[in-house]
Amino acid sequence: MALIVQKYGGSSVADAPSIRRVAQRIVDTHKAGNEVVVVVSAMGDTTDELVDLAKQVVPLPAGRELDMLLTAGERISMSLLAMAIRELGFEARSYTGSQAGMATDARHGSARIVEVNPTRIREAIDSGAIAIVAGFQGFNRGTGDITTLGRGGSDTTAVALAAALGAEVCEIYTDVDGVYTADPRIVPSAKKLSVITSEEMLELAAAGAKVLYIRAVEYARRHGVTIHVRSSFNSNEGTLVINDDGEGNMEEAMISGVAVDLSEGKITVVGVPDVPGKAAEIFTHVADTETNIDMIVQNVSTVETGLTDISFTLPKADGEKVMSALLAKQDQIGFESLLFDGEIAKIALVGAGMRTSSGISAKLFTALFEAGVNIEMISTSEIRISVVTRAEFAKTAARAIHTAFGLDGDELAVVHAGTGR
Amino acid sequence: MALIVQKYGGSSVADAPSIRRVAQRIVDTHKAGNEVVVVVSAMGDTTDELVDLAKQVVPLPAGRELDMLLTAGERISMSLLAMAIRELGFEARSYTGSQAGMATDARHGSARIVEVNPTRIREAIDSGAIAIVAGFQGFNRGTGDITTLGRGGSDTTAVALAAALGAEVCEIYTDVDGVYTADPRIVPSAKKLSVITSEEMLELAAAGAKVLYIRAVEYARRHGVTIHVRSSFNSNEGTLVINDDGEGNMEEAMISGVAVDLSEGKITVVGVPDVPGKAAEIFTHVADTETNIDMIVQNVSTVETGLTDISFTLPKADGEKVMSALLAKQDQIGFESLLFDGEIAKIALVGAGMRTSSGISAKLFTALFEAGVNIEMISTSEIRISVVTRAEFAKTAARAIHTAFGLDGDELAVVHAGTGR
Repeated sequence: MALIVQKYGGSSVADAPSIRRVAQRIVDTHKAGNEVVVVVSAMGDTTDELVDLAKQVVPLPAGRELDMLLTAGERISMSLLAMAIRELGFEARSYTGSQAGMATDARHGSARIVEVNPTRIREAIDSGAIAIVAGFQGFNRGTGDITTLGRGGSDTTAVALAAALGAEVCEIYTDVDGVYTADPRIVPSAKKLSVITSEEMLELAAAGAKVLYIRAVEYARRHGVTIHVRSSFNSNEGTLVINDDGEGNMEEAMISGVAVDLSEGKITVVGVPDVPGKAAEIFTHVADTETNIDMIVQNVSTVETGLTDISFTLPKADGEKVMSALLAKQDQIGFESLLFDGEIAKIALVGAGMRTSSGISAKLFTALFEAGVNIEMISTSEIRISVVTRAEFAKTAARAIHTAFGLDGDELAVVHAGTGR
Repeated sequence: MALIVQKYGGSSVADAPSIRRVAQRIVDTHKAGNEVVVVVSAMGDTTDELVDLAKQVVPLPAGRELDMLLTAGERISMSLLAMAIRELGFEARSYTGSQAGMATDARHGSARIVEVNPTRIREAIDSGAIAIVAGFQGFNRGTGDITTLGRGGSDTTAVALAAALGAEVCEIYTDVDGVYTADPRIVPSAKKLSVITSEEMLELAAAGAKVLYIRAVEYARRHGVTIHVRSSFNSNEGTLVINDDGEGNMEEAMISGVAVDLSEGKITVVGVPDVPGKAAEIFTHVADTETNIDMIVQNVSTVETGLTDISFTLPKADGEKVMSALLAKQDQIGFESLLFDGEIAKIALVGAGMRTSSGISAKLFTALFEAGVNIEMISTSEIRISVVTRAEFAKTAARAIHTAFGLDGDELAVVHAGTGR
């Protein structure tokens, strides 16, 4: 008898019929002889609606109270799901994050899990029941206050529970069939991967692939949890995210996929004096705005002027904030001007096979050259190459790379609308 | 420095502006030098909407899960209220029923409080904060499961917290100015009582007065809590519900009010064999349906037939259920037929002064006779007389009694729309 943790996102439980459908799937898994623990997100857009409600009351809700408010969302979906399972004749009980023993630190809105004590969940499944656990939420071990884990929190809850319970697999149900070699909306010939390493999945997620959250993959990797990404709309096998032990005992795909990220913008600081400490000064001011920046490029300075340009990418939504922060320090830093470019695309090629293979960069740059795509920035890691191009060339670039590395499949991918949390 | 517990019902926190208004009132109480603990119900119709949602998923939701679902309601209102208070510059923290230490038994949907341990609430107010507590909810001390207290639960939460914290007063905010000698929508000349004994309040509540729930008044009486019923729409003094020590050391009104209840119906079991045990048999079957019945009248049987009629009142909503249960046992009980009457009114006159005063019944019956109102059933307690009349005569009867006992006031009462939980 295997223990399986299943996670269903908000789009899988958006309304009463969806909840009944998910209940049936859970019961089927249970009837097949498995112990089942389910992690569920809030229904559909509930979380956004609760945030809106808070903003009607106050412009900037306090973290502790916003967490208390938002956790009402999973409370609703999980109790309805438990009701629906009971209606099918099986015992089911819902548990809040606190009841499931998800102890976190005190950072409201982005709490980190410090310990998982799923005693009540263990008791529930030992008694033959199906346990339904609220995703996204925990409690501050010090104060007992309710906390939330931030974006992708429900995925993290599921993986953390799977680790603590020693589950055979953590199934993450979503609105796509699994992890694809590229976003099928951008590259129609993208094919589903049957297996991917957690390392590759991390790079893909970091490069903008939406299917799994980085934190959950990191947690799975650190605790040896196998994730199975699959669709809640059919019973197809999805993608297994496995932990490569690095000994090469599996046939590993050289390249696992291409990710396109259109959510980033680029800031260029023009005419920075090329003296030691200037880059540090600039990025200290950027860090003070709590913005995550990604790629950084510094031009070679011209000998005549002694000035250089520094460019970096960041989420478009943070552009205004960072521009203001830097402009306020223009005299102090001594740069000439500041440019914001919201029309870029970041395209990344990911594959564990890169590690042992040469010529990957050359092949990628050639493919882009032949497709007529100009490269503006380049950044590489051990198993990833990212380039920045004009946004208008995103599709062309992604398709060219996808084809060049032999990723094209025979059939078209199926994508459903909506996204979970 | 006094400790005050304030309870706000759903209509007082129905939307963002109402929540901000209530926050201001709480802050004003705090600024006046009081320690403040606030108990809040779910916003407006939230609870009904959650019940509807559950019924979309399953016809008969399981109690444990329904409680988990419904408690999302107060979680939303209390966190929003805490945010609004913080926005005014005062520290406020919200607490669930569990966090506030409301330990109950295991009866989901109608749990009884078994112990109140408000350690965290005490700590919050000792630190200078305003504590916001979810009304209506608790936790099963044995299992840790979430429970709800049933109808009027938030009033009970407030009184129980006031008792456990030794509060000076428990202020129950509602949409009327206090307790009236009659419902002002029925008797426009009704006047507000400045004080009423908990005993009288119990009888008025039992007789259909909606302003306070019986359970909360019972709890207050048993634990010596003074309740102040007042409006959240103005700052008028309301009605104090005090615990009469029975030694007559206060000037007590002879008659405190008239209550009208149009929510009941009457079932008549026609042609019951007048043999010992038949009434017991009938009411055992009624009890099996878990219906609360109120007045019971058995006619004198006719010598010729040896048959009698038995009538009783019950909530209209339970009429169909009880009729079906009795019809299923018709042969066994041996009655001739069954009548349901949904057009009755129950009118009650309540007053501690009745205890020491004679002629009250005669005066009441005379007033109804002179108003042309026929009496169908009569029931009395030590401090209450109830009669059943045709529903169409409810207003006439209530006004006639109100005038006959000198209750008419000089000014008209103000009533706001909506009701709390």
